[in-house]
Order: sequence, then C-alpha cells, then structure tokens
Amino acid sequence: MTADTARAPASELFLAELRAVIGDRLSTAAAVRDHHASGEDYLPPAAPDAVCFVHSTEEVCAIVKICAAHGVPVIPYGTGTSLEGHVIAVHGGVSIDLSQMDAVLQVNSEDIDCRVQAGVTRKQLNEYLRDTGLFFPIDPGADASLGGMAATRASGTNAVRYGTMRENVLGLTVVLADGRVIRTGGRARKSAAGYDLTRLFVGSEGTLGVITEIQLRLYGIPEAISSAVCQYPTLGDAINTVILTIQSGIPVARIELLDDLQMGACIAYSKLEGYQAKPTLWFEFHGTEASVREQAEQVGAISDEFGGGNFQWTDRTEERNKLWQARHDAYFAALALAPGKTGITTDACVPISRLAECVLDTQRDIEESGLLAPIVGHAGDGNFHLVILVDRDDADEMKQAKALIERLNLRAIAMGGTCTGEHGIGIGKVDFLIAEHGEAVSVMRSIKTALDPANIMNPGKMLRV
Amino acid sequence: MTADTARAPASELFLAELRAVIGDRLSTAAAVRDHHASGEDYLPPAAPDAVCFVHSTEEVCAIVKICAAHGVPVIPYGTGTSLEGHVIAVHGGVSIDLSQMDAVLQVNSEDIDCRVQAGVTRKQLNEYLRDTGLFFPIDPGADASLGGMAATRASGTNAVRYGTMRENVLGLTVVLADGRVIRTGGRARKSAAGYDLTRLFVGSEGTLGVITEIQLRLYGIPEAISSAVCQYPTLGDAINTVILTIQSGIPVARIELLDDLQMGACIAYSKLEGYQAKPTLWFEFHGTEASVREQAEQVGAISDEFGGGNFQWTDRTEERNKLWQARHDAYFAALALAPGKTGITTDACVPISRLAECVLDTQRDIEESGLLAPIVGHAGDGNFHLVILVDRDDADEMKQAKALIERLNLRAIAMGGTCTGEHGIGIGKVDFLIAEHGEAVSVMRSIKTALDPANIMNPGKMLRV
Repeated sequence: MTADTARAPASELFLAELRAVIGDRLSTAAAVRDHHASGEDYLPPAAPDAVCFVHSTEEVCAIVKICAAHGVPVIPYGTGTSLEGHVIAVHGGVSIDLSQMDAVLQVNSEDIDCRVQAGVTRKQLNEYLRDTGLFFPIDPGADASLGGMAATRASGTNAVRYGTMRENVLGLTVVLADGRVIRTGGRARKSAAGYDLTRLFVGSEGTLGVITEIQLRLYGIPEAISSAVCQYPTLGDAINTVILTIQSGIPVARIELLDDLQMGACIAYSKLEGYQAKPTLWFEFHGTEASVREQAEQVGAISDEFGGGNFQWTDRTEERNKLWQARHDAYFAALALAPGKTGITTDACVPISRLAECVLDTQRDIEESGLLAPIVGHAGDGNFHLVILVDRDDADEMKQAKALIERLNLRAIAMGGTCTGEHGIGIGKVDFLIAEHGEAVSVMRSIKTALDPANIMNPGKMLRV
Repeated sequence: MTADTARAPASELFLAELRAVIGDRLSTAAAVRDHHASGEDYLPPAAPDAVCFVHSTEEVCAIVKICAAHGVPVIPYGTGTSLEGHVIAVHGGVSIDLSQMDAVLQVNSEDIDCRVQAGVTRKQLNEYLRDTGLFFPIDPGADASLGGMAATRASGTNAVRYGTMRENVLGLTVVLADGRVIRTGGRARKSAAGYDLTRLFVGSEGTLGVITEIQLRLYGIPEAISSAVCQYPTLGDAINTVILTIQSGIPVARIELLDDLQMGACIAYSKLEGYQAKPTLWFEFHGTEASVREQAEQVGAISDEFGGGNFQWTDRTEERNKLWQARHDAYFAALALAPGKTGITTDACVPISRLAECVLDTQRDIEESGLLAPIVGHAGDGNFHLVILVDRDDADEMKQAKALIERLNLRAIAMGGTCTGEHGIGIGKVDFLIAEHGEAVSVMRSIKTALDPANIMNPGKMLRV
C-alpha cells in the first residue's frame, strides 16, 4: 500500500457515518489529532484524520466496518506509550482511542483470572484488585493499557518469574478488518483445540485487528516480598551474577541491571542514598517467608563470588517502593544527564549465556561512537535497553544513533537473540524483523493479507505488505 | 476438498520421484501402510498410499514439493500415539514418518535449552540428558515424538507446574505446503518481534506444515522430589482438595485424580499394595528439600480438611517410579476391567472452579448411560479423561459412547472450558471446535487457506476447508 492509496480523504460523508455511531466522541480537533500522532518514540509524528473515543466492542465493530467500506486505515490507541511508532498514523486514517473502555468486567478469584476492557491500565487493574489478595504482575514501566500491552506482547521487570503477555493472556475479543468479532482462547488453563489465535493476536501490533477485551491470568500476592541491591566492581561481574542466578533456577521475581552511568543518573534523580555510581543489580524475591529467605541467601552467595559488595536486602514496603519508583524513573534520570537532549529508547534480548558478551560489546560500541547512552535492563530475561541521548536537530548525531541501534540489533540476532525483547517492531524495526526471521516473514505477510486484504489495520507497521 | 480431488493416484511416476529422494526408505508394502493407517484412536483406519522414512529437513522439503506438484496429501507421522485420528490417511497420500529423525542436535546447558529433530521421543531426550542435570518435563504418558507433541500441543502430568508444549517450545523448523522451509522463534527467553508463528504451528496438527526440528526449554532436575498418595471418602472431596491446592498457589508438579473405578483397576493391574478402590489423588512435589517439605505440609493440611486419610509421602525413587508407572498404565488397567472391549479415550478441560461440578456431572452421566468409563485426570489443570470401554462391533454401544463424548464436550465448553485439554481436534472433534470457538474457526480456516491453498497438509483434520 502506498500512502496515496491508503489515504482516503476524511470526507464529510465518512465523518457523518462515524458520528452516527459515537456522536461527539468523534473528534477532528487539531489538538486531539496531534495528541494521537505519536507515542513515546523518536519517529516523525503523523496525525490521524479523526479520533474515535469508543465505549464498546460494538462501537469498534461499527467504526471498523465504516473504515473498511471507505478504505480508511484504523489505528488502535491505548495510552500512547509505544516506543516504536505503533500509533503513528503514517497513512492517515482513524485513531480508535480505547482509553474510555476502562471497565474491569469480571474478576474470578476462584480461577485467579479476570476479564477487562482493553483500555484498563495495569495500575487501574491492580488498584481494582487491591482487596482481593490478587495482582497482575506484568509491569513494563509505563502505566500502559492492557490492550496495548497485549498488542505489543509487553513484559517488563517481573517477566523473569511471571512471563510476558504471551504467557498471561488467556483469551481475547478482537474486531477483525471486516468488522467481524471473534473471541479467542478460553478460561481453561490449557487447550489443544485449534490454532492458537490468542497468541497470534498477542504481539500483532494492531495489524490484524483491534483488541477490545482481554482475559488475563492473575496471581496471589506473595506472602513475603523482599528486595536487594548489590553493586559490583565491573559490569561483567554484575552480569555474571545474573547468569549464574538464572542457571541455578532460583525463581527470582525481578533482576534489573543498571550500568554505572545509569546508576549514577538514578542516584542523582531519585536521591538514592548509600549507593555509588557502579554497575548495580536490583533484585526482588517473592514467595513464602521461608522461600524468600532461601532465595536471598542463594543469590547472596552467588553475588559474593563476583565481588558484589554489601548485599543489602529489605522487606520494608516503603523502601522497596522507593527503589522501584527509581527504577521506573530511570528514563527521566537518564534524560537529566543531558538537559535539552531527547532520549531514544531501544531494546534487544539474547540467550542468557550471551548476555555478558552482548552488553559489554554494546558498551564498548557506545563509547567508540561518542554517544551518551546508559544501559538498563531486565537482565534475568537477557533483555536490556539503551537510552541514547541525542539532539534531534543534529542530523549527524541522529544518524550515529540509528547506526548504533542497527549494530545492537544485528549483534543480538547474531547471538541467537532478538531485535526486540519487548518494545515491538512498529515502524522502527521492520528491517530487523526480516534480518531476524528471514523467510518466516513471508508467512507473517500471508497471514496479514488473508485477514486484512485491503491493509487497513495499522498499515505501515511491522510488515511491508 | 473432497476425497476424490484429494486422492491423486500413487502413480509410478510419482513414486519414482519420491524414490529418487529417499531410495528404499520409501515403502508401499501393505504391512507398513497399515501400520501408518491409524493412531491409538477408535476411528476407522485408512492407509496412506506410501510411507516415506525421512532423515532430514531437506528430504521432507523435497517430498513435500513432489506431493504439492502432484496434489497428493501429506500426513506427518511420529510414533502413532494420537488419540483423535491425526495420522489417519483419510484422503490417502504420503505418510512422512519422522521416527528416524532422532538426533538430539544441541544441548545448551548454559541456557537450559536444546534443539532436537522431530522424531526424538521424550524418553530418548531424557535418556540423552541423563548426565547433564537437566530434564524435559512434559509427559503425556505415551513415549511420543517431540514433533508429534509439538504438533498436538501435548501436555500431561507435569503441566500443572511446567506448562504444556505451548510454553516449552522456543522455536521450530517447519516445511510449508509449497516446500519452503522456515525457522520460527529463537533462543531468547522472550521476543516482541513479529507474529508468534511458533505458537501458531504448535497445535496445528500437521495442517499448516511438517515440523522437522524443535527448540525446547529444559529444566534443572529438582534437588528434591517427593510423592504422596491420598484417598478420599468421595470424588467431590478429592476434587475440592485439588481446587484449594491450586487456588492457594502451591507449586505442585503433579496432581492426578483417579475415581474409585480407575483406582480399583490400577490396584489390580499394577499390584499396588495398601490402597483401596476409593477416589484418590497422586501428588508430586519438586523443589529444594525445604520447599518440597513445605509444599507437602501445606497440601497435607488441605487434604485433611476434606477427609483425605493417611497422606503418605515418600521420596524413595523406586516407590515413586512404581506409582507413576501405574499411572501411565492406567489405560491398560482400565482395559483389564472388561476383557475383549476396546477403550475410547477422550478428554476435556474446565476452569479449576468448575472441575468438581464437571466431573461429578460426568460421573452421573456415565452411570445413567450404563457405560463403563473410569475417570482419570490431570486435575491440577482442570483436565480429565474418560476411558470408555466398548465393544466396537456393538453399534448401539458405540453410538452411546459418542453421545456421552458429545455431552462431555458441550458440558465443558458451557463451563468456559475446552473440548480438549491435550488430545487435539483431529477427526474426532471437528464439530466441537466450532461449538467452542464459533466465528474464530473461520479465521483459522483463512489462515489454513493462505498457507496451504491446495489443502494437501493433513487434509480432513481439525478444519473443514
């Protein structure tokens, strides 16, 4: 599809049809359209022709049918926290904003699952669950919508223990490109009935349909939680502690890695006391009192082997919350290192045995490139991020940043890893998807074409159709 | 596709082309064809026109290209332990027997994963891993090939702790309907790169391509393993023990349920001493010494609440092996209840909260039907099986058995469950797939048609195309 063919004009007739469905929840105001023109990415924004604030699957269905009849692109929008351009309306079209579909539809504490509308954010869900003894662990940092998290196969700090959206979405309601509505999956813990459409739509980035409801697995809040922070002489020592912890099968809930630059930034930004700007690991342990103690002791012993000083652990909620807030603010802490610059966030993920090599090669590469780019990562999964600090108006610096990202992605792929552990392909990584999956991308394209022959579902993302 | 159009004659030209690829590993002998005419199912067998014993992905690729050129069906065959007719050559064609592709290609103990050819069986893999301290936990009972297990999304006794093939396949090599070869997935623990083709092919029952290699997640052999057997006054008490155990989040490795009939059969067949023909649970706990003790104590306390007598637990390997062998022989034990009769094995799976209701309703239904059908199940997953003992030549009894299966499947679906937890759709459950997934089946059909337009990949299975 070229921009020309895709870009049907937002005719008055077309807008009137949409308005008949959602009334004044249709907006063509410049401010609203601009707000929906990009996520938290570094890519050139492009505003949709109109934004629809929907309240139900039926409304999404009606809107998609109208868009299909007019050949107009449909871009699902949750909280706009995408990092790879998923919500940019590169071919114009209608942004379907699901943020007002924010109802928790059902919580089943006996089966430890729930059903939510796609606009519910992870914090809203956990707030709702507060008195049930249950929680939803997937935590990508941003307070993203669960629909967006499903669409991008999000993960984050807790994934090392609880898995990603891939493991925790039990079923979906999806509006397809022709307006048909399907329900995938079910509430049984396992099934061998038919193709696994749930996992096909999880991570499909809006290119196959609009996710409107999600059935999610929940977990009991652990009896005990404790956190530990440990600092190392070198980045290699920190990573080797991670590798041995994972290889030992210790069921840690979180292991986050910060290089010296990022740790220094966090100390300054979040006013952390008693730490140095050294390579650092933040651990969290979940379980019974006994198992949490056992895990902390096992990890403490491994950490000692690699010179990890003062393995400090705490089960004080306040202190833990302060630490994890600092972790979530790592991006802003990084930005504060270079006032006036923008942060380009990118990620890659490798098999755990290659993590030290990949991160150290990348750190060397950053140094040689002359760029400023702290490293922070969900190291337990082999997943890490760079926040590359750039002046967006400096063409040369932008070019260097893109070249650094390219080298990082190809390095991860060459090590048997992936060009993105959790941010997705979007616009930014279309070429790397091909580098990673080769001929398999043509199968993805066949599926896309079969389910969305006119290419109206989030066109320009993930695949060149 | 009708049987007529699908059934291309096995012309001499066609056979000569196949022979050029694999020489005398092509067989058209009646005995070999008959051996490949059915699995362990109750459905009418149908022999393929030829059987190809393949040694490599390249050979599969060449054979599929020849079949595609001649419009001949391709039926992948592993160990022939399917229970729903997956390997029956209903439209004739070529059975590709992968059992000689039995090489373990790589074991990576640092990343705790491995890559195997599709014909390696789960026991062969565990034998190979014996000295590494690692194991592959998925255990469907039969010593099935890992290719077949991936193709049918198999699970079994350990799934409650370790998940099913869905969670444990990291990537695949697949030969598509046109002979193209793709590699899906990767070795990183997570990825957000593109559609999740791995999970699309896991459970696709040979209808989208032939799986030739599998990347699998492994696990460290637990430091401690202990088993427990507990007997209950009623089936409801046993199931309520399961439900509360799962709801409490206790990470049991196995919880198997046997009703009084099945337990009696196992006592007789496997000469188990010290047990009664009462509703029974068999538990297994994996972990550190401390955690196994903690789990056993927690479950013991729950079991007491429901009148579970003499919670006997043992960590003696010999005794454990005897118990689990008896569990795996449950099918033969059931057969011994009615010499001369055949067993029709079927399964269903429901959310754990509905397990008691579903199993008790089913037991009542069996009694009312006058059939003999012991119940045994992977109760921790909400999954259970019937072995319906029938005289295959008694048309009335066969009709009653099919009606019982239909009521069981619709009951499970009505409770938010699935018509099959682990056996798959095959030929036997095509209608129930539609009952369970409705419009979503048309999406499955679109995908099938996009990837296999001539419908040569295991035609007649899962979907009516």
